Amino acid sequence: MAQSRVRTTEKSTLTANGARRRRNLSRAGYLEAKLGFRNYWYPAAFSHELAGGQALGVRLLGENILLRRVGERTMAVADRCLHRGVRFSRKLECYTDDTITCWYHGFTYRLSDGKLVEILTEPGSSLVGKLALKTYPVTETKGIVFVYIGEREPGELGHDVPPNFLDPELEIDGIHDHVNANWRMGAENGFDTTHIYIHRDSPLIPGNDLMLPLGLCPGDRHGISTYSDSEPKGVLDHTFESYQPVFEAAIDGRTVARSKGVNNRNIVAREVSIWMPGALKVDPWPDPALIQFEWYVPIDVDTHTYWRVLGKRVAGAAEAAAFHEEFHSRWESLALHGFNDDDIRAREGMQEFYQRDEAWDEEHLFKPDRCIVEWRQLASRHHRGIQPIA
Amino acid sequence: MAQSRVRTTEKSTLTANGARRRRNLSRAGYLEAKLGFRNYWYPAAFSHELAGGQALGVRLLGENILLRRVGERTMAVADRCLHRGVRFSRKLECYTDDTITCWYHGFTYRLSDGKLVEILTEPGSSLVGKLALKTYPVTETKGIVFVYIGEREPGELGHDVPPNFLDPELEIDGIHDHVNANWRMGAENGFDTTHIYIHRDSPLIPGNDLMLPLGLCPGDRHGISTYSDSEPKGVLDHTFESYQPVFEAAIDGRTVARSKGVNNRNIVAREVSIWMPGALKVDPWPDPALIQFEWYVPIDVDTHTYWRVLGKRVAGAAEAAAFHEEFHSRWESLALHGFNDDDIRAREGMQEFYQRDEAWDEEHLFKPDRCIVEWRQLASRHHRGIQPIA
Amino acid sequence: MAQSRVRTTEKSTLTANGARRRRNLSRAGYLEAKLGFRNYWYPAAFSHELAGGQALGVRLLGENILLRRVGERTMAVADRCLHRGVRFSRKLECYTDDTITCWYHGFTYRLSDGKLVEILTEPGSSLVGKLALKTYPVTETKGIVFVYIGEREPGELGHDVPPNFLDPELEIDGIHDHVNANWRMGAENGFDTTHIYIHRDSPLIPGNDLMLPLGLCPGDRHGISTYSDSEPKGVLDHTFESYQPVFEAAIDGRTVARSKGVNNRNIVAREVSIWMPGALKVDPWPDPALIQFEWYVPIDVDTHTYWRVLGKRVAGAAEAAAFHEEFHSRWESLALHGFNDDDIRAREGMQEFYQRDEAWDEEHLFKPDRCIVEWRQLASRHHRGIQPIA
Repeated sequence: MAQSRVRTTEKSTLTANGARRRRNLSRAGYLEAKLGFRNYWYPAAFSHELAGGQALGVRLLGENILLRRVGERTMAVADRCLHRGVRFSRKLECYTDDTITCWYHGFTYRLSDGKLVEILTEPGSSLVGKLALKTYPVTETKGIVFVYIGEREPGELGHDVPPNFLDPELEIDGIHDHVNANWRMGAENGFDTTHIYIHRDSPLIPGNDLMLPLGLCPGDRHGISTYSDSEPKGVLDHTFESYQPVFEAAIDGRTVARSKGVNNRNIVAREVSIWMPGALKVDPWPDPALIQFEWYVPIDVDTHTYWRVLGKRVAGAAEAAAFHEEFHSRWESLALHGFNDDDIRAREGMQEFYQRDEAWDEEHLFKPDRCIVEWRQLASRHHRGIQPIA
Repeated sequence: MAQSRVRTTEKSTLTANGARRRRNLSRAGYLEAKLGFRNYWYPAAFSHELAGGQALGVRLLGENILLRRVGERTMAVADRCLHRGVRFSRKLECYTDDTITCWYHGFTYRLSDGKLVEILTEPGSSLVGKLALKTYPVTETKGIVFVYIGEREPGELGHDVPPNFLDPELEIDGIHDHVNANWRMGAENGFDTTHIYIHRDSPLIPGNDLMLPLGLCPGDRHGISTYSDSEPKGVLDHTFESYQPVFEAAIDGRTVARSKGVNNRNIVAREVSIWMPGALKVDPWPDPALIQFEWYVPIDVDTHTYWRVLGKRVAGAAEAAAFHEEFHSRWESLALHGFNDDDIRAREGMQEFYQRDEAWDEEHLFKPDRCIVEWRQLASRHHRGIQPIA
Repeated sequence: MAQSRVRTTEKSTLTANGARRRRNLSRAGYLEAKLGFRNYWYPAAFSHELAGGQALGVRLLGENILLRRVGERTMAVADRCLHRGVRFSRKLECYTDDTITCWYHGFTYRLSDGKLVEILTEPGSSLVGKLALKTYPVTETKGIVFVYIGEREPGELGHDVPPNFLDPELEIDGIHDHVNANWRMGAENGFDTTHIYIHRDSPLIPGNDLMLPLGLCPGDRHGISTYSDSEPKGVLDHTFESYQPVFEAAIDGRTVARSKGVNNRNIVAREVSIWMPGALKVDPWPDPALIQFEWYVPIDVDTHTYWRVLGKRVAGAAEAAAFHEEFHSRWESLALHGFNDDDIRAREGMQEFYQRDEAWDEEHLFKPDRCIVEWRQLASRHHRGIQPIA
């Protein structure tokens, strides 16, 4: 993996017009990407949501997509009949293993290629074979169905997910939720170093004996690595290497808050990284034996699907089963909800401000936001396309 | 009634630009008529809704209208006080038989001519006699109050309702409901031949022993008649004469659905017709002895009032009373709700697509949609005016 | 107080274009002031809402403001962190007596000057001392916290509240509510002479033996005084001096309504006046011993906060305590809710009409609306600034 340590220090608050113009240019693509980036793989559903051959309608980057497993393969087609534009998922009709039939007039499409193969209300229609639904490339791994949104030839999944996610020994489990905030609020909250402040009373800290500071002071030489010459492209923050942890906070010389995890044993979040098209990796988290992955997948301009996924290296089926049991009995409530639900509230709190385009010029970033500035620049310079707003 | 059998076959899916331009031109008025057509009579209320002299506020084609029966006549005036613009119907005050008083300052208008006849808070005001509410022509028949929306001299009601609706021996009963879809979704769903597919599991089929196919294949020579030289103007589909009924549907050679009504006794829907400004007639329906009439009256751009009305020829008062009893005990739940509620869901399913203007170019009609194409052309060419959007 | 009796009679319904143009010019500023007027003091909270040092987020004229009492003084700052734009009031954190800390990253501001004094997550940040929240001038009197919205140097509170409100012997109590109508609907409903018609069945009339007519006929010489040369600026209607009360209303010669208060004893509302930036005084009301003050403070373009406040002249602490007891046990339900809740419904009834800019040209005012015309002109000509819409 190619890597280049970033050495230049970018001022987080710029007042001169020239500086503002340069800053805007360097993040222009990111500001435009209200619906995310095209030509990437995105998680669309957990495999178990497609169990029993049932079809599922999902919405990604403003596109309605229908998913269905056909034998070993999972297929994805546009969730909109070509005839009168209704969504198949309003009333699912699957008569055969590899077709979807529209509930309105019986237009029936083959899932593998999207072709109109029959119209039940006019058998032998001259339209048969002449129309085809848009199909989406699909790949499924680690219990997650990924869909490719874009017009370019899809590349390897490994180029579009955080490092290690596809490691063979890594067992995965997780949840996803609807959040009322633009996807960039999700990405920036997740990658934001000092937002740990909002988690200072989280039950996870005593619950898993976590050493967690209130904040982090960056040293003179930022420990941020930017990966822009290889795939996946991302920004990695060496949090424990380059920051001074803050365990006590004072106002006017009077101590007002203390980290509850200062004397705890478990060291976590040594590295936090974000990867195109918008996926986080916190390593390790929420336990020295686990890694947390997150995706912030645009639904519409004002909403995103928040994926919270844990990975654990396991040696065989028994360890894998134990991990899933542990996930459901312990980590789902203690870590994913008990800790990350606060992040949902923080993103929704930012949305009111950042939904106004001018907000991006009105914000005042501080030194620890350097990682966010790097992420915005990377995304602006190295994306494969911007999803247009319909 | 003048009639001209349509012989030309219009391709439902046109790709050449010239063809698309011609198609768009031929339906331009219809596409513009998001709030419906002006200079027509529309059903506004059932007579029983005005019983006891009580006033009623309704909304048609984006206009708020107040209805009240004054002796033998029903009056309609704009439901908005000229003084400060409030709606009378927010708090109805009718002190005398033929006036409406505004609840806010006591501006009092004569219903027959709309004239301001008194202001209760300033008796003898100089405004009295100088202002007048807009009045609407009203006619009442068959238990329905019709209001005329337009600036031209109103014509006969018989020109604006489906044939036979005014036949003296026809007794009428019905219901109306609010639907979250543009009125054209209602009209096109109602007149659409092959949408019978959505009704294949309706309790009405076994409940009234109906012979109903899953779909209909048009023959080479379409059985569609267009009435554009006389009043009312409309399009009539000779469904049972010109289509091949489809009782069984197959995908890839495998039968996937069968009509539950294939061996049933009652033949219905021999003719389905639609009439300006947007009223359907299904003859006979839902029983060989009944006719169903429907109206799709615009409320706003995104909503319409759905009128479902049954007619039966009766010989006298006893038969009429028996019909009303039968309507309430049998047809209202079995047919109007048990069958047509599915149509409401279908229209609401189309609304998401067709509310975008470009959708009308993106749809892909098939051969049985010929009746819809005819209807759009008739409405575009022969309407009396388009209701402007405020 | 400088005073000039208005003698010219302005026609309320003008049809000539020249007249309409003149009318529009004379009220242009008022029509523009959808969010109210700048450079005035507005009531923002009752003092008891800030008890115990707790902070409170309020919204006035489209601005989010955080209030907190610091010792003897109450402070107001913009309710939006300069860092990422979140509202402090989503999760209040006040670690010390005179600061507000943002819940997201611990940005901590001094309330007195708005300055960033610390960042808990990066102690010693270079931003400290360089950023400052916008602060708002605050003054507190009569149990109400007033905030100044504007950029000019704030003047005396006495210039921006109705006369007598600050009289030392006047004891004050009241409530505030959210109303779904523009603030001008509130002001015009409150100052409107003849809207008393809507109150004719109010329980307050028998409940406090009030003499209240159904309407009021203005005499030839209007009893309206306009105060535009001194502060506060306002319009006063000498209601009982210059109008002929209407106790009985007839339509077509037949009596249809009679005041229930015609023979009652208590004379109230002798003078009704409205003052910039939008505050009403009804003297006396709802009892000969009381005065009612009202404010209609814009929240957003479509909503306002309705302040209903009663004042009573008291001789000492015991009389003051008795008044507060009387307010809660009697006036709050009988007068403020029992009478003025009808006004809320009236304003919400006007909102649908007046939210369209053209409505102001379509209304038809009558002679008693002269007071409203005067108020619009005064506000248009003598305001200190118009609040811009974001």
